[in-house]
Amino acid sequence: MTKKGSTSRAATKGGDDLSLRELLRVPGGKPVDLAAHDARETPAGPRDKQAGQAAITALGAPLADLQERLWAASTAGDRRRVLLVLQGMDTSGKGGTVKHVIGLFNPSGCRIQAFKAPTPKELEHPFLWRIKRALPQAGELGIFDRSHYEDVLIARVRGLVPADEIERRYDEINRFEKSLADDGVTVVKCFLHISYDEQRDRLLKRLDRPDKHWKFNVSDIDDRALWPAYQRAYEIALERCSAPHAPWYLVPADHKWYRNWAVSRLLLEHLSELDPRYPKADFDVADARKRLLEQ
Amino acid sequence: MTKKGSTSRAATKGGDDLSLRELLRVPGGKPVDLAAHDARETPAGPRDKQAGQAAITALGAPLADLQERLWAASTAGDRRRVLLVLQGMDTSGKGGTVKHVIGLFNPSGCRIQAFKAPTPKELEHPFLWRIKRALPQAGELGIFDRSHYEDVLIARVRGLVPADEIERRYDEINRFEKSLADDGVTVVKCFLHISYDEQRDRLLKRLDRPDKHWKFNVSDIDDRALWPAYQRAYEIALERCSAPHAPWYLVPADHKWYRNWAVSRLLLEHLSELDPRYPKADFDVADARKRLLEQ
Repeated sequence: MTKKGSTSRAATKGGDDLSLRELLRVPGGKPVDLAAHDARETPAGPRDKQAGQAAITALGAPLADLQERLWAASTAGDRRRVLLVLQGMDTSGKGGTVKHVIGLFNPSGCRIQAFKAPTPKELEHPFLWRIKRALPQAGELGIFDRSHYEDVLIARVRGLVPADEIERRYDEINRFEKSLADDGVTVVKCFLHISYDEQRDRLLKRLDRPDKHWKFNVSDIDDRALWPAYQRAYEIALERCSAPHAPWYLVPADHKWYRNWAVSRLLLEHLSELDPRYPKADFDVADARKRLLEQ
Repeated sequence: MTKKGSTSRAATKGGDDLSLRELLRVPGGKPVDLAAHDARETPAGPRDKQAGQAAITALGAPLADLQERLWAASTAGDRRRVLLVLQGMDTSGKGGTVKHVIGLFNPSGCRIQAFKAPTPKELEHPFLWRIKRALPQAGELGIFDRSHYEDVLIARVRGLVPADEIERRYDEINRFEKSLADDGVTVVKCFLHISYDEQRDRLLKRLDRPDKHWKFNVSDIDDRALWPAYQRAYEIALERCSAPHAPWYLVPADHKWYRNWAVSRLLLEHLSELDPRYPKADFDVADARKRLLEQ
């Protein structure tokens, strides 16, 4: 193997030096300029679609192993759990990420919630009410397809609530996520960053295929007309709500294979850091074996 | 290809004549003798582990396609949904079925609920209360790992409620499942049938591996001592609660690959019968394309 080959191989395995977290993490408190981030970039990791898909497949076994350990640990009182938050413009691939990345895990340990426009009942409550009801339990991997961030994104762009209420929400979100972290939740927030052109291509593709029409909403075109305002709303949310205990990751997402690899890899790095352990037997193993053999 | 080869191939594909439903369905209202059913049997379908795993993999694409159609149809008002109920003795493979069979589906359309011993809060309610709260929504595939049947199984064997109450529950379950069917729920109930010897082997294997100790409960040995009573309780439940609209399937489960293939295949047959369709666009496609290209 050439040296280049070895490096590339290491970059797609678990026990290497690559930290995608460091590479993609949004430093909180500093202005974010999304236009300066090329959504077609593929920083670190596999270099093309074929290598990307192989790398994703290779991540399946270690991810499933870590998930099982997390679940097993919860049966002995370990309350830790993981919450993956997926945000991004229409067609950025939130659903595709659930399908391809979360599809690598044992479905019984995953708690997936897609947040749509709030129902009348949800609107009667504070905006975090429905979020708190959908949190992962001990040992679980929770996945939010959209989240409480909609309440500072569409709510801001469409002026659904007064400006001072929006301002308050950033702080409320930060306090909420801090309390989650204090309670053993590893919060992993991924902004799936696509370009304006890529979104048009994806929307047009949906129109070209009758079996994709159900995914198309005419309101997506109206939202697209507000692209600059949405990008600005994302910039503010990323700047104000990326904390060490609940970081935002800016995931270039024009390439679906890179997006899937990057989210998988971020989950691997976080789960590896948690390093959940199988609990020791709380019963007499030899005695149990003896009783079984006597039956 | 020999004639035998062609038959075997057809038996693992979607568009063939094989009806595993007919083969494994428990005829309701007739006495069931579990001892007369060999749990090591592999009636129809692939003949060995290698062929079985290939057949399961091959079912992945058609199952995911049908699931997407079911979900897509729900966005246009189709309220149909599927509920897979998994029951069986300890180690019969309920969890393994979720991992390997449900793992073939898009996790975002699956709603999985494992039912443990009822909590004090759940015990304050009728036994179907917690069941009704966990049902799949329109377009979803719901999966129950254990279910309301525990309330006529362990409840009967352990005498947790009076005998006349157990008697009433069969009728109540039948009425409940009829109401589900009337409301568009395809109920698929699988009894994972393992042998007494196979259970001992599986329990011993758990004891041999420290990374499996967390799955072991000493109470499993106590339950095993009540094997005949549990088998009898299952026989009664299968006899009294296998209806055309909510059939019980008796799945030989000593071979994990056969169990996984059979449950996948049963789901395929039920989903194929539902034949969900992508909804037609409820908007002007040409106009939407024009607006997008102008942006």
